[in-house]
Amino acid sequence: MKDEIPAVGCSFPRFDAWSKVSGAEKYAADVYAPDMLWAGAKRAGMAHGGILAVHTADAESVPGVFSVLTHKDVPGTNRQGIVHKDQPVLAGEKVRHCGEPVALVLAENREALKQALSWIQLDVDPLPGVFDPEEALKPDAPLVHVAGNTLLSAVIRTGDAAKAFSDCDVILEDCFEVPFQEHAFIETENGIAHQNPDGSLVMTVSTQAPFRDRMEIGHALGLDFSSIHIISPYLGGGFGGKDGATVQCLLALAAMNANGRSVKMWWDREESFVAGYKRHAARLYYKLGADADGTLKSLECRLYYDTGAYAHLGGEVLELGMEHAGGPYRIPHVLIQGWSVYTNNPVGGAMRGFGVSQAAFAIEQMMNRLAEKLSMDPLELRLKNALRRGDRNSSGVTLVHSTGIVSCLKTIKQHPLWNNRVDWKARAGCFKRRGVGVCAVFNAIGYGRGLPDSAIAKVELTREGRIRVYCGVSDMGQGNASAFVQIAGEMLRQDTGNLELILPDTERTHPSGSSSAGRTTYTYGNALIRACQQLKEKLIHRASLVLFLDEPVGLTLLPGRIRHLPSGREVSFSTLAAMLPDSDRVAIDQHVMTVASDGNLNASGFILGFPHVLFSYSAHLVGIEIDELTGGVSVLFYLAVTDAGRIINPQGVEQQIHGAVAQGLGYALYEDIRLRDGKILNPSFTNYIIPTSLDVPDIASLTVETVESTGPFGMKGMGEVGMNGPLPVVAGAVLDAVGVWSNRSPITAERILDAL
Amino acid sequence: MKDEIPAVGCSFPRFDAWSKVSGAEKYAADVYAPDMLWAGAKRAGMAHGGILAVHTADAESVPGVFSVLTHKDVPGTNRQGIVHKDQPVLAGEKVRHCGEPVALVLAENREALKQALSWIQLDVDPLPGVFDPEEALKPDAPLVHVAGNTLLSAVIRTGDAAKAFSDCDVILEDCFEVPFQEHAFIETENGIAHQNPDGSLVMTVSTQAPFRDRMEIGHALGLDFSSIHIISPYLGGGFGGKDGATVQCLLALAAMNANGRSVKMWWDREESFVAGYKRHAARLYYKLGADADGTLKSLECRLYYDTGAYAHLGGEVLELGMEHAGGPYRIPHVLIQGWSVYTNNPVGGAMRGFGVSQAAFAIEQMMNRLAEKLSMDPLELRLKNALRRGDRNSSGVTLVHSTGIVSCLKTIKQHPLWNNRVDWKARAGCFKRRGVGVCAVFNAIGYGRGLPDSAIAKVELTREGRIRVYCGVSDMGQGNASAFVQIAGEMLRQDTGNLELILPDTERTHPSGSSSAGRTTYTYGNALIRACQQLKEKLIHRASLVLFLDEPVGLTLLPGRIRHLPSGREVSFSTLAAMLPDSDRVAIDQHVMTVASDGNLNASGFILGFPHVLFSYSAHLVGIEIDELTGGVSVLFYLAVTDAGRIINPQGVEQQIHGAVAQGLGYALYEDIRLRDGKILNPSFTNYIIPTSLDVPDIASLTVETVESTGPFGMKGMGEVGMNGPLPVVAGAVLDAVGVWSNRSPITAERILDAL
Repeated sequence: MKDEIPAVGCSFPRFDAWSKVSGAEKYAADVYAPDMLWAGAKRAGMAHGGILAVHTADAESVPGVFSVLTHKDVPGTNRQGIVHKDQPVLAGEKVRHCGEPVALVLAENREALKQALSWIQLDVDPLPGVFDPEEALKPDAPLVHVAGNTLLSAVIRTGDAAKAFSDCDVILEDCFEVPFQEHAFIETENGIAHQNPDGSLVMTVSTQAPFRDRMEIGHALGLDFSSIHIISPYLGGGFGGKDGATVQCLLALAAMNANGRSVKMWWDREESFVAGYKRHAARLYYKLGADADGTLKSLECRLYYDTGAYAHLGGEVLELGMEHAGGPYRIPHVLIQGWSVYTNNPVGGAMRGFGVSQAAFAIEQMMNRLAEKLSMDPLELRLKNALRRGDRNSSGVTLVHSTGIVSCLKTIKQHPLWNNRVDWKARAGCFKRRGVGVCAVFNAIGYGRGLPDSAIAKVELTREGRIRVYCGVSDMGQGNASAFVQIAGEMLRQDTGNLELILPDTERTHPSGSSSAGRTTYTYGNALIRACQQLKEKLIHRASLVLFLDEPVGLTLLPGRIRHLPSGREVSFSTLAAMLPDSDRVAIDQHVMTVASDGNLNASGFILGFPHVLFSYSAHLVGIEIDELTGGVSVLFYLAVTDAGRIINPQGVEQQIHGAVAQGLGYALYEDIRLRDGKILNPSFTNYIIPTSLDVPDIASLTVETVESTGPFGMKGMGEVGMNGPLPVVAGAVLDAVGVWSNRSPITAERILDAL
Repeated sequence: MKDEIPAVGCSFPRFDAWSKVSGAEKYAADVYAPDMLWAGAKRAGMAHGGILAVHTADAESVPGVFSVLTHKDVPGTNRQGIVHKDQPVLAGEKVRHCGEPVALVLAENREALKQALSWIQLDVDPLPGVFDPEEALKPDAPLVHVAGNTLLSAVIRTGDAAKAFSDCDVILEDCFEVPFQEHAFIETENGIAHQNPDGSLVMTVSTQAPFRDRMEIGHALGLDFSSIHIISPYLGGGFGGKDGATVQCLLALAAMNANGRSVKMWWDREESFVAGYKRHAARLYYKLGADADGTLKSLECRLYYDTGAYAHLGGEVLELGMEHAGGPYRIPHVLIQGWSVYTNNPVGGAMRGFGVSQAAFAIEQMMNRLAEKLSMDPLELRLKNALRRGDRNSSGVTLVHSTGIVSCLKTIKQHPLWNNRVDWKARAGCFKRRGVGVCAVFNAIGYGRGLPDSAIAKVELTREGRIRVYCGVSDMGQGNASAFVQIAGEMLRQDTGNLELILPDTERTHPSGSSSAGRTTYTYGNALIRACQQLKEKLIHRASLVLFLDEPVGLTLLPGRIRHLPSGREVSFSTLAAMLPDSDRVAIDQHVMTVASDGNLNASGFILGFPHVLFSYSAHLVGIEIDELTGGVSVLFYLAVTDAGRIINPQGVEQQIHGAVAQGLGYALYEDIRLRDGKILNPSFTNYIIPTSLDVPDIASLTVETVESTGPFGMKGMGEVGMNGPLPVVAGAVLDAVGVWSNRSPITAERILDAL
């Protein structure tokens, strides 16, 4: 890679491309230590029951076993959870889902560990379980938690939906169901930790939120968070599944009992299925009313999200689902009720599309049916109702920021794939039926009201005269770290050869929140721009002193140096670095994301994360072919048009869209966590099917470049929105192709064949 | 002193008041080290001569003498000087003034030192000397330096002065002379230094420019400036006399030859007279033309400044004199020529009023004579011609900044002391004559074009949760350090009990230029405001994270804590400090003073420091009584009205005015360095007379509060302008009282009696 200044707006290879391809980059899973112990958790294996005893003696006797710990060995609150701290590190009184850890084994090697785990005997008094959120809300349902099974019950009420229905020309009702989805990252949950003689903990972990992890561990294990040092290398995928404690508390507990030795914990694929977080399964009741010309008028929804045994972010995921339940449309009257419900299923958590993917399926299918009912072009129906800047969305928030869904839809309307669709469909082969689908989706950016969406950026002129960016938010593969290098390069006019990157590390970088919510590049990028501006002013000023100029004008940064343009005189960065004391080679600055200033005052039940003010938008177009003999769906073309504000790295955006659409096609067509009594029946990739390269078509990605004036260089986050399109757009295309109505996902060959 | 927030605009006791009054504050002179050596310089004692030999053997044999060094022991260039490096640390080939050091003695005690110095024999071949600047410019004059006796020859030409005189109704010509003036600070030049085993030097020194001192020492002694550590405690007075190397290079040389021991050098009063810098003696030829109504039309001047044996800031002092030669008046046609000339007199250097005090005497006396000639009220004459904002001054600079001389004059015009002056004069007693004088003066602020007038401020939240200001510019008694504490207190809403101050130290604070040119509070204050703003934003942001607010609004800083006003919740500074890593508890920011964007393009000869764009202004009013029998002048009332922009600390401003007027009254009435063949005849306070408390009247100080929008809280520097008024205002009052015309200062009793 030739050194050049990574101009914002141009495609640049990822800063990590070479080191990842060559294997030089070390993920947390790649980190080993000499004389290291292995830790593993004994899982409950049953969905609900009172723990009578955990017999560890046999396990302790296994040669190579270092120790076996139970809840009695947990020194703190023994509770973790991002918002609601309801999840034990090691279960004590009862187990609430099959993946619940009840004992922790430390062993000299993986064989001893495995044997010891299998020799731990659990004495559990089985309790009746509950596995469906609506069932769980019934008065006589078994209680997962003593306070009841409702994690969150909330209402968004705008206008008067019930009354508005009486004026509607057409009213449609339906119910939709989506299953749990697995994150299926390549690098499963893992980390390595040790305790220093002074009691402090050092942990390298695959995490999306290193700074918050300290709070989680500190609270659960009774430690001062400042004594916990978290190092977060690049992640081999995260998608939300590493937002919140996975191995963290268990590993910290292990390290505290390892006599100073390093301990590694690395869940295998099955454990990742069983114990890892999932996209929430949900059931969504919809009632949509419109005028005869297609103008949306009223919406009533009841959304039931199954958060499984513990809260994790179940309340917030529901909130996003409710906030997006009406789609990117103007609907004056809205009554959206939502319940996030405890069951004895696996724990629901954050996942790309965070509650929105479920609701997008429902509202977009309602729009498809409405178009069918009114014999309207589904694209025109969407355009007619699409939110425009200045509108209030169904949460009552005035859209003062960039709002590009109309541009996305118009781009599709003008695209040959859409205009030639009749011809294209007619060219289906024998026993094949073709269909074209379109959808409009959106996704909030940032944490929303209730907690600070904040980042603190640091940039340094190193002693050697290079520019080093201290990245405060994890890069789970989405490329934000590279975007930061690009931003610093642009701001400080440095070429890639002169730029360095420090990955998140609680002792070297600064708290910048989690890598999630489409906020990472937006929030940290804004902070970084400010820090770079500060450093730039500093360096120009210091150079003006060296050059003895009476004012710091006419100076420009160039790679490795500053030039006084009028005279051509230059000062090298290394000269400046040698002159400046350490504290003066650094610039630190912060940013807090803008929050909504209006919004539905009637909304109730929300604690954090409602409402949002900034959204990315996307319209998707798909062409599929269905085999009439098997019901199998082939995706033949796919176009995603995205409004993500101005683009920093077009190549990076395209990669994100490709990844999101691929993951979305898995959600649409294949991925289905099968549960029986809370137990996952298909905890492996042999029967939990994710798309392979053969299943994913060439995906065309276009962007409509609105400018988000609050964003870094006009950008806004777009890692999630692409996930929300594939399921509804494929469902629409299936309807178009064979008239089969899908209200349950995934839309498998079996289901289509059944319907046919 | 009760803790309270030191609000800007209110009088507050100096931050150093108690420690100075109680003796707890340590000046450089108060610093001693165990096992310390004393260093002293052998002075030439003759004004001009070729050095044949320096015999040191006798001195070396004195018991207690550690070593004796000569120019051969100087490892570097052996040249010091702020702009022109022409001054040897130890003279080699020749001596150019009586105070020239030719040898350096290190001894175990002061007695041995004194004896050794007296035993050094100088073998010098006397050369004819030159002691008058005009004489020195003659072709056959003895050469002080081989390149000639002209340090700087410069011209300011605006309009066509010669032609304009032909249109004038009245033309006056005169010549003025002023002698050298002594700074007469309480703490004479001194410092203490040692060399570390790694070769680095540490020096505590009474200096106005610690950061520049490193360059001076480094250049003179061949050291890397970064290996020199200068600590600058409060100064017991400076007034410009400690701007530039005094003991620095000698002391560094001593420390380099002291085998790691500390060395102290402290000039006694006589040495301070003989070797210290002086206000330049000058001869000023004036020709002023005006219309019959008093409108100034044309000015021609020839200014000869005697810079003595070495340059120091002689060129720049002359420049200021020329820039101010026309007074604070509109004069459309100007021809000002100036020469800064080497002689064998003591070295002229920086002193409060920096070249301006001399010229103010001349132009204001010309104004007094013009008023007399035209039978005009001298105040009205000044008002008629006074510069207003938007005018171009006689250097061609458009006055875009605050320009308050009209307000100053109008304040005097309305003051009872002025309005009742006829009555007041009539009340003189027997053999007494009373007179009232008025004058208008101004003084540039900052370095002017050609070099950066820059400061770098640092402010820190300490680990203990207090606010610490790192002061980058020395406080020589003018109170700038206290102003910085006040600014930080105001910006960060901290009370005095929560504020700390670090005095200049090249390893702890950042380069912020010299304490001089009325720039100190202006430039550093501006940088500090920016640094405080940065820290404030940081602390508010970090507090919003602790309080889990979704945006950093509604938060305010209070002493030791931050309060969220809507909820009343607070975060203490100590909590924040404990959370933040070291690099995040600090804010560093910089400021560069604004420079002139226009100005006389015909000006020639200037290198640095011309023109300026920012000035403080002052009108003074004095009432004196002359004893007809002795010629003695008693100052009975004094009013100084000053435009210094907005006032940060009224008490501090008043103190500065009082000090400047007292020093100016000494210049007006008593202070006169008597020279014979370059030798000072009165190197002590027994015959060099400075005013005592009995000689100084109660001084009334008023300010006209213009706002200088580029200054910190609207202020501009005012440490110097008060110095320029007393001599001309007293001269005018003498003229008013007894009709005696003074064109030579000081206006002693003898001179008045002679004239009477």
